[in-house]
Amino acid sequence: MAHKVLQDNFEVDYVIVLRVSSDDKQAGAAQFQKLIRVLAETGLTTEVRRGDETSLLVFVKAADEQAFAEVVYRSRIKDWLHGIRQIQPTKDPAETLTSEPLTPAERLRMIHHMICCPEEEGGAGITPKHGQWKSVEAVFPLHDHVKNKKWLAEFARKTFLTPEDLDEIRNSMGEQIGYYYAFLQSYFSFLIFPAAFGFSSWILLGNFSAIYAVVNGLWCVVFVEYWKRQEQELAIRWDVKNVSSIEDKRREFVPEKTITDSITGEKMAYFPAKKRLQRQLLQIPLAILCVVALGAIICTCYAIEIFISEVYDGPLKSILVFLPTIILTLLVPAVSNYLTQFAERLTYYENYETQDAHDKAMISKVFVINFITSYLAIFLTSFVYVPFASLLVPYLDIFSLTVKPFAQNEKQMQPPSPAQFTINPNRIRDQMIYFAVTAQVVNFGMETVMPILTQKGTKKYKEMQSARAEKNGGTVPSVSANDPPEEKDFLTRVREEASLPDYDVATDLREMVIQFGYLALFSVIWPLTPVSYFINNWIELRGDTFKLTVECRRPNPARADSIGPWLDSLEFLAWLGSITTAALVYMFSGGQGPDGRPHAICLWALLLGVFCSEHIFLVVRVIVRYAISKVDSAAMRKERSERFMVRKKFLEDAGLADVIKYSLPKSPLKATSGDQAFANITRDSLEEDARRDSLKSTTAADRFWNHQRSWAEAEKVGLGMIDLMDVKDGTEKKSQ
Amino acid sequence: MAHKVLQDNFEVDYVIVLRVSSDDKQAGAAQFQKLIRVLAETGLTTEVRRGDETSLLVFVKAADEQAFAEVVYRSRIKDWLHGIRQIQPTKDPAETLTSEPLTPAERLRMIHHMICCPEEEGGAGITPKHGQWKSVEAVFPLHDHVKNKKWLAEFARKTFLTPEDLDEIRNSMGEQIGYYYAFLQSYFSFLIFPAAFGFSSWILLGNFSAIYAVVNGLWCVVFVEYWKRQEQELAIRWDVKNVSSIEDKRREFVPEKTITDSITGEKMAYFPAKKRLQRQLLQIPLAILCVVALGAIICTCYAIEIFISEVYDGPLKSILVFLPTIILTLLVPAVSNYLTQFAERLTYYENYETQDAHDKAMISKVFVINFITSYLAIFLTSFVYVPFASLLVPYLDIFSLTVKPFAQNEKQMQPPSPAQFTINPNRIRDQMIYFAVTAQVVNFGMETVMPILTQKGTKKYKEMQSARAEKNGGTVPSVSANDPPEEKDFLTRVREEASLPDYDVATDLREMVIQFGYLALFSVIWPLTPVSYFINNWIELRGDTFKLTVECRRPNPARADSIGPWLDSLEFLAWLGSITTAALVYMFSGGQGPDGRPHAICLWALLLGVFCSEHIFLVVRVIVRYAISKVDSAAMRKERSERFMVRKKFLEDAGLADVIKYSLPKSPLKATSGDQAFANITRDSLEEDARRDSLKSTTAADRFWNHQRSWAEAEKVGLGMIDLMDVKDGTEKKSQ
Repeated sequence: MAHKVLQDNFEVDYVIVLRVSSDDKQAGAAQFQKLIRVLAETGLTTEVRRGDETSLLVFVKAADEQAFAEVVYRSRIKDWLHGIRQIQPTKDPAETLTSEPLTPAERLRMIHHMICCPEEEGGAGITPKHGQWKSVEAVFPLHDHVKNKKWLAEFARKTFLTPEDLDEIRNSMGEQIGYYYAFLQSYFSFLIFPAAFGFSSWILLGNFSAIYAVVNGLWCVVFVEYWKRQEQELAIRWDVKNVSSIEDKRREFVPEKTITDSITGEKMAYFPAKKRLQRQLLQIPLAILCVVALGAIICTCYAIEIFISEVYDGPLKSILVFLPTIILTLLVPAVSNYLTQFAERLTYYENYETQDAHDKAMISKVFVINFITSYLAIFLTSFVYVPFASLLVPYLDIFSLTVKPFAQNEKQMQPPSPAQFTINPNRIRDQMIYFAVTAQVVNFGMETVMPILTQKGTKKYKEMQSARAEKNGGTVPSVSANDPPEEKDFLTRVREEASLPDYDVATDLREMVIQFGYLALFSVIWPLTPVSYFINNWIELRGDTFKLTVECRRPNPARADSIGPWLDSLEFLAWLGSITTAALVYMFSGGQGPDGRPHAICLWALLLGVFCSEHIFLVVRVIVRYAISKVDSAAMRKERSERFMVRKKFLEDAGLADVIKYSLPKSPLKATSGDQAFANITRDSLEEDARRDSLKSTTAADRFWNHQRSWAEAEKVGLGMIDLMDVKDGTEKKSQ
Repeated sequence: MAHKVLQDNFEVDYVIVLRVSSDDKQAGAAQFQKLIRVLAETGLTTEVRRGDETSLLVFVKAADEQAFAEVVYRSRIKDWLHGIRQIQPTKDPAETLTSEPLTPAERLRMIHHMICCPEEEGGAGITPKHGQWKSVEAVFPLHDHVKNKKWLAEFARKTFLTPEDLDEIRNSMGEQIGYYYAFLQSYFSFLIFPAAFGFSSWILLGNFSAIYAVVNGLWCVVFVEYWKRQEQELAIRWDVKNVSSIEDKRREFVPEKTITDSITGEKMAYFPAKKRLQRQLLQIPLAILCVVALGAIICTCYAIEIFISEVYDGPLKSILVFLPTIILTLLVPAVSNYLTQFAERLTYYENYETQDAHDKAMISKVFVINFITSYLAIFLTSFVYVPFASLLVPYLDIFSLTVKPFAQNEKQMQPPSPAQFTINPNRIRDQMIYFAVTAQVVNFGMETVMPILTQKGTKKYKEMQSARAEKNGGTVPSVSANDPPEEKDFLTRVREEASLPDYDVATDLREMVIQFGYLALFSVIWPLTPVSYFINNWIELRGDTFKLTVECRRPNPARADSIGPWLDSLEFLAWLGSITTAALVYMFSGGQGPDGRPHAICLWALLLGVFCSEHIFLVVRVIVRYAISKVDSAAMRKERSERFMVRKKFLEDAGLADVIKYSLPKSPLKATSGDQAFANITRDSLEEDARRDSLKSTTAADRFWNHQRSWAEAEKVGLGMIDLMDVKDGTEKKSQ
């Protein structure tokens, strides 16, 4: 029974959760009435059930499959007009659904579009948690639990996902999530090489190997360029090429004025680009603020940590050592959260016309914040602590004021002289191991294990609470008491899904990009890094699948033709990697001196190394890009052929089938061959010419062209001229 | 009379020059017969006249304007299919020529296409100087002398060309030459700023000013990015967007095998990309060869020059000083010519499928050769002579062997000790002045004045020769003796045009790109450089017009949507400029020491400066690129509107006009409004539902959806549920 229920979503396409505010029942009722009407008007059927104590579940499906086919047809026509589809959809809307089958994702996307598209464009105009629809808490499709179970079981058994698995994810969850899985999968497969090479070089070459650095840099370039190409091929495979050119207008966009297009006569919302550029300049102070705020926290904690672990020798050292970590763990998320909000507000202020542009601008800001929080500490170790520690440590003096109360005698407080102080030679490697292993494990716990524990806990707590209430005699009527028995399991499941959080693919992508950054920037410190990431990413993909299918609501399928601005981040990190890696290799590869410091660093040699490394990287990138662009693939061939077939069909319809082959029309002379035909035509045209002559006054040009009235005459005259020429006769020469 | 003749080209579209080889009259006659026939077959009318002693002039025009309209129509259909035209051409070929007027360039392009397009595609398949058509010496259109005269007169009076002037050039000479003029014009206008700023900074700041360097670098970025945008706008204005996607197959392409496309079933010539990539690897040895060969010559001459001018003090110094210049002038063109031929052969070997790809590959090789010949000398002065001269000059000793015969005593031969030797502090500036002024004047002389003198001279010589022949009694019959009197002037003109060389726009473009390179890389040495270039380019444009209209045959109009790979060269030079300029400023701005050498160069500071300068440049470039991409322009708006109108028209034709506005169909509920309509529909659908129920066995889903049969029932049930909720009533609260 339970299994059967799992399979059956009762044909429900979407669920809308309507929250009735706890102090205004009437407003809730009015809102509900409006919701039901507007959905009916848009062509959607509804069923209502109780949600939790103060919410309703409105189940939605297309009222009429015939009318829904028209919706799909219109969407496909629009795609075709924007060049996303090569092939024009069949004209009959009724055939739409049968001629080209609808994937679950496409169906859900259509229904979601009907629910959320503005009323001016024919939709219901529901804007969850926003404007007049504030009490609509969520609009989400139901999970396909059979497929979810199958994925979880299958993926756990496999090492690599097949292209068909990716297709299935795309068919069910939409292209955006499909792209994330495809990226994760490509990245994972590509990691085999640096993992294997990293392991060998860890054994044979040790840390800071120049050979590993070169191979790793090359790998980064090839991977990024390969993925760019892969994106294009997926766009063809999934029919989403150019999909970003259909730009959904942002609801929050505030036009400065409405202008009328002089050619089309359409009214358009207008916001001057110059004004937006000026607002975008605020990104510079924002970036500075991020650097200063996060930088200050991280640097301070870093300094405290070094002071306590390597200088301070007083009481409570074993406890105080954790102090900076605690400060960091508390402050950094709070501050970066605050900065993210700030960035969000700035992005709103920048007032983009399309959601795409808005997201792009936001992601680039988020990347800056993440870059600082993720990489600053290890940058400090590499490029400040190691070269300058002996100079800087004495200034950490100021912290002695803080630890004074704990000090037992003056000596403990004395900072060591530069000669005494020794740099911890393993600090940088330990830090890298932390980022490569520990941080990944912690992150997996926070991301995948924590939510399920929290959910289980909350459920248990609620159950206990209601049990206690029952025991105390108060018969609080459960919302599920009135459920029809055959729907009981289904409704319980829907209520659970409604209480889950939304799935955010951008977070998962960001995690992977940041991981790629560690690999590109610092993996030369510890060549086992790729091995760790390889293992981690196998788990990551399964964990993300678990999160997507069990711990979150099913996401609204969205289309995409790329992983978006993260691609730029990948390129940037690979580039930066060519600089940091060269610097790290130069500074650390020579082995370390007795004071833990690397051999004497010669600044010009360091800079020259970095300069060369960066430029070699750029040249190699140009070559790899060129080489990859020239390699043909099945998807590219498919697209070309499709385009060719479309053209051919059009020309055939227009009675011009031979344009493909003949860029010129067949001349009548060619159609019938032989001198006979020539002669005929010639006589005809001669007569024609003569008639024309007699009608018109002869111009100089006419007289010029009438010297030789036909090709035959021209031939004769020309041969005569050749005969007059003072040149040898070929036959004479031959006979001589 | 002379003026009238100038105007009249007797409606001749094209002229074909057929050379009869001096030892085989019969073969010439056969070739001629074939030519006349194949032209007639293609739908072209011919008239034959004598050319010079051993050649015929075949005048060509479209035989029938109706048939020619069909040719134009097909070409426009093809453009439309490839997305070059937004608007579909009218279906009636007869209307083609009237509905959208044909520019002279388009007409000539069509005729040229008819003459040169392969026979398999319906053309005459003439390949001048190639294959079976080796004796066809030239295929060229006739100059429009009225327009040419007008241009020469008008341009001489104007400072700037107007967009209409550019349009006129494009209409007459084709887009490729139009792009060159547009580029020259943009570049010239942009030069005003650095010219003015350079002049002021020459007066106020002197040479090697950091401020000038920054402004100049910024200017380079803005100019290159602006031009990129300008190119796109011109492509829209001239309707050539994506024109490079119609790729003319190269006749010389040698496919490895013929494969059959699995989808379209077309046979395609195939050459594996991998094999081509392998062949392209040969570019590396070629580049090395260029560097070594040209580098050796230039370095040697440079060393000799320094030795003679600054070390040697023997007899004949005043003559010997010119020795390196003479060697350079003789050797460099010869060697670079040889290398260019080598590059050409390599490009042929790389076996590109399209002319476009072939030209691109060739230009990138030519750029390498030009880069070395143009900039190496000044690189040597800046980065070898100045910092290392004192170390290197003693080694120039070896040259004393060469000058030994001239030496009068041992002392003259003695190389100076490093302490004695002083660097010529003005050398770098003098060199820059040479490139900025002298070289430009010399180049103008070589390019524009020389050919006209040569032509005049040759003409005079011929006249004298024939006059002498006449005097000697030999009545050599002049070829023009038999010309009809009314055609005499015309034929003389055509014979003259036939003897002119082809116009090569790539050479002129290259010249400008190299000039831009001097500006970007070295103008900080002498801030008057842009002033000189500004003046030079005013003359250059007029000189090029003179060359194009008087000194060369009228070129075959070609389409283009860009200046092609030269754009990459511009970007590269601007980038490199950020490096060299920073280095020059650092090395020279501090003033020079007593020995002519700049202040002590600190290598790490130099590298750090270069590193920062380059990265600031790259960041600024990203910002400028972004800002320019966001600025809207009239051309872009026009294109968007046009695309919109095309879509609208299509949808109107398909009866879907409202798709533009409504992405969803109007639901029947919406069409008729009010509760009345709701009630009707509801009753209908209820009955429908009931009927369906009775027909089908009820599934769980059907039962689920039949709880509330209409939106009205759903509303009622939902309101009941809200009533049951344990929340406050809004009205109660208000009344409290």
